Amino acid sequence: MNEQPIKPLKIAVYPGSFDPVTMGHLDLIHRAAKHFDHLVVAVLNNTSKNPLFSVEERLVLLRQVTADLPNVEIDSFRDLLVNYMKTKQAHIIVRGLRAVSDFEYELQLASTNHKLSEEVETFFMMTNPKYSYLSSSIVKEIAKFNGPVHELVPPQVEEALKAKYAELNQE
Amino acid sequence: MNEQPIKPLKIAVYPGSFDPVTMGHLDLIHRAAKHFDHLVVAVLNNTSKNPLFSVEERLVLLRQVTADLPNVEIDSFRDLLVNYMKTKQAHIIVRGLRAVSDFEYELQLASTNHKLSEEVETFFMMTNPKYSYLSSSIVKEIAKFNGPVHELVPPQVEEALKAKYAELNQE
Amino acid sequence: MNEQPIKPLKIAVYPGSFDPVTMGHLDLIHRAAKHFDHLVVAVLNNTSKNPLFSVEERLVLLRQVTADLPNVEIDSFRDLLVNYMKTKQAHIIVRGLRAVSDFEYELQLASTNHKLSEEVETFFMMTNPKYSYLSSSIVKEIAKFNGPVHELVPPQVEEALKAKYAELNQE
Amino acid sequence: MNEQPIKPLKIAVYPGSFDPVTMGHLDLIHRAAKHFDHLVVAVLNNTSKNPLFSVEERLVLLRQVTADLPNVEIDSFRDLLVNYMKTKQAHIIVRGLRAVSDFEYELQLASTNHKLSEEVETFFMMTNPKYSYLSSSIVKEIAKFNGPVHELVPPQVEEALKAKYAELNQE
Amino acid sequence: MNEQPIKPLKIAVYPGSFDPVTMGHLDLIHRAAKHFDHLVVAVLNNTSKNPLFSVEERLVLLRQVTADLPNVEIDSFRDLLVNYMKTKQAHIIVRGLRAVSDFEYELQLASTNHKLSEEVETFFMMTNPKYSYLSSSIVKEIAKFNGPVHELVPPQVEEALKAKYAELNQE
Amino acid sequence: MNEQPIKPLKIAVYPGSFDPVTMGHLDLIHRAAKHFDHLVVAVLNNTSKNPLFSVEERLVLLRQVTADLPNVEIDSFRDLLVNYMKTKQAHIIVRGLRAVSDFEYELQLASTNHKLSEEVETFFMMTNPKYSYLSSSIVKEIAKFNGPVHELVPPQVEEALKAKYAELNQE
Repeated sequence: MNEQPIKPLKIAVYPGSFDPVTMGHLDLIHRAAKHFDHLVVAVLNNTSKNPLFSVEERLVLLRQVTADLPNVEIDSFRDLLVNYMKTKQAHIIVRGLRAVSDFEYELQLASTNHKLSEEVETFFMMTNPKYSYLSSSIVKEIAKFNGPVHELVPPQVEEALKAKYAELNQE
Repeated sequence: MNEQPIKPLKIAVYPGSFDPVTMGHLDLIHRAAKHFDHLVVAVLNNTSKNPLFSVEERLVLLRQVTADLPNVEIDSFRDLLVNYMKTKQAHIIVRGLRAVSDFEYELQLASTNHKLSEEVETFFMMTNPKYSYLSSSIVKEIAKFNGPVHELVPPQVEEALKAKYAELNQE
Repeated sequence: MNEQPIKPLKIAVYPGSFDPVTMGHLDLIHRAAKHFDHLVVAVLNNTSKNPLFSVEERLVLLRQVTADLPNVEIDSFRDLLVNYMKTKQAHIIVRGLRAVSDFEYELQLASTNHKLSEEVETFFMMTNPKYSYLSSSIVKEIAKFNGPVHELVPPQVEEALKAKYAELNQE
Repeated sequence: MNEQPIKPLKIAVYPGSFDPVTMGHLDLIHRAAKHFDHLVVAVLNNTSKNPLFSVEERLVLLRQVTADLPNVEIDSFRDLLVNYMKTKQAHIIVRGLRAVSDFEYELQLASTNHKLSEEVETFFMMTNPKYSYLSSSIVKEIAKFNGPVHELVPPQVEEALKAKYAELNQE
Repeated sequence: MNEQPIKPLKIAVYPGSFDPVTMGHLDLIHRAAKHFDHLVVAVLNNTSKNPLFSVEERLVLLRQVTADLPNVEIDSFRDLLVNYMKTKQAHIIVRGLRAVSDFEYELQLASTNHKLSEEVETFFMMTNPKYSYLSSSIVKEIAKFNGPVHELVPPQVEEALKAKYAELNQE
Repeated sequence: MNEQPIKPLKIAVYPGSFDPVTMGHLDLIHRAAKHFDHLVVAVLNNTSKNPLFSVEERLVLLRQVTADLPNVEIDSFRDLLVNYMKTKQAHIIVRGLRAVSDFEYELQLASTNHKLSEEVETFFMMTNPKYSYLSSSIVKEIAKFNGPVHELVPPQVEEALKAKYAELNQE
């Protein structure tokens, strides 16, 4: 039944803030990387937000925690997502869904992106239930008070959080 | 950047009741068929429900409305979805998301299927906003009273609905 | 600023099952009756459901509890709502919103009705918060066990419930 | 059945930020204007927010895009909505509903306004499904990167967005 | 700070269908039993539903899986919950919350029960995230097709499910 | 059935911003105080937010409105909630649930706190339906425009709001 010609390589983009990358993000990256030929994890360079880690720091952490995944590329962008996707020849956006509040915002984004470029499709993946309570904000809230985050983020991120808050508290 | 070996063909399954197939389903089938090498639209043969169309009738309608899509296969199953997927060598489930109530049930199903088989991943696609109000139930509710359904279902389904309700009203 | 010609009388339809009418429904009927010239409370005669009260009994109860409202008419229908509205020369559907689950179903209905007839518009009114927990089903659940329903339904409905369950328990 | 005396003219207020007005807002204005004698579109002058367009600019745009609607008035207010409504002799608030997150906030507002003034009633209208993904924020997000917004806003707003971002990027 | 007189023993009731009890229910029973002096797990004897296990079978399974919890009592009831609670001298209802759809129904129940008896309070506990996808219905759906349920239910329930479906398939 | 040894006193913490305390909070405090031996109402000292009342002012108002409740203690904290609870020997967090948006955030918090400390359990109580539209933000929005808040907050808070906005408007 599979006699049709081999389709071009499937390239997907997983955009986000990743401030910082959590175990929930990493689980989704591993699962998505299995199903696409090439996966670009793309940090949104949003100048109007006030992040904890700089875009450069977030890229370094993402590269460290995905070093074992040969078909994953780490990048950043500062444009409309659909324009950025053209530069990557990608047609698929990957996004995680945790909760109902996620869902409505994500559907709004997916509809807008599909309207901006008919070629672009968003595939939503469910977040692993054991990470459904997890977000970058909650990780930062816990780390700020020196609480335990080792089950919530990869070891490199745990260290980066400690260093960052030590630095901030010195100021 | 794409030097890794070509991955095996991507086979996806789009399971559902399709009682009957609507323009919302068809829009999703067209969009999904673009991104997978092979797409199996699989009618769930659920003996405990009381459908309007028999599984056989639903398969005929689905085959008619997807005749122009060479990489789409129409089939039915009466087993755990994850078992059925093994017989198709498929690892990806495709599902549409319309509303919050969909979302929670679908997440529950996706989690269960992932737990039953780690290889299986569910990709959710958003329903086209212009069909977000559409469901097989609402189509049947309108057709039962002879209301206009030509924008809601393909022409073959419109005729099948008329014939079916004419038959039911004769009884 | 109001020099434009007087518009035709505003007629609205409030459709529902009303099995039986509750204090929540009655509150909404009172509020809607203030803002429309004529309000038709229309009992849906849905043959596939298994109601507690017959359509005729529900009409009697509705007429009793709205006897003091001169611009309210009680009626029943067994057709597509948009067709029924034409017979009433009504362009406005009134519906109550209690909870999120209501909301999605109601939006689906409103979209379908607007699609079936562009002239028809649905106005949603919020349920009074003190009745937000109230539904005909919960009233019946309580009355079945002889629990107190006098704050949940008008006195005539309380009596009708007692009589109905006395009758059912005798069988 | 319509022998009761003609009721006073129905005046409704549609409050919002309109920063800027979108096709979704405009669709709702057209639909609401059909069902009320007079419709006031009222820009909330909220000094604590940081808008893109000034209240004056928003009023000009709203006046341009509703010039063909004789019973629509454009205004702004800086008070409790229920107080403002008294100055307009209006008893009805019109609001659009898109998503679940809208819904809860809107219900909270409607309950509060009804509590503040028993005379005031909120009528919710569903957003046209084809604009259900649309918001002023998403329009600004796209326009900021010079993306296409001509299907999302009226032509006058498209031009105003271009001029505004050209000006902001020069700074 | 704790000089006030010791309050009477806290008795809580955890009502449900438990058709059959899952790992999610059991996790909640363990957690609730820690915080109350006495916990009654109460099977609702709802004659209108069509259960897989009889009330007697469900009580036996619940007793087996809670045998190690000395302050847990297994019982059934066929009355208004608030009446049943009086016979147990209990003032607290315990319920698990998984998803938004749960939430609204549960809030409706809690409000009604509080209205029926001011003394009664409902305490909601969140379901353990790793069981958030789990329900008795999904367990039965999997067991019906001989799928693996050993991580979803206690061993005694797994065996009971096998025996039950073997029996049903023989018919 | 109650022969097990008396358990240690039950201490619960009800954390929040209380900026300012509303009738909804107060209703929940009264109901919770009935079911726990000791209830600590704990104001979160969140330096990153911009409150209307200082932590000290909020503590004073809370002490005034709970003066008649002997087993209620008013306190503030500036740490991870689970750490603060250890200092109070408390194992139970009490939180109110109003709406779906509350619900998801609260579930996320409850999961995180349970993960940080297995001993800690969150009991959610439903907000009284008549206060379901109420929040500190809406109270402030009304008070800012001199609107009537006497049914929404205790008298002491009403006065404090008047004094605060008089002071702010003088600046």
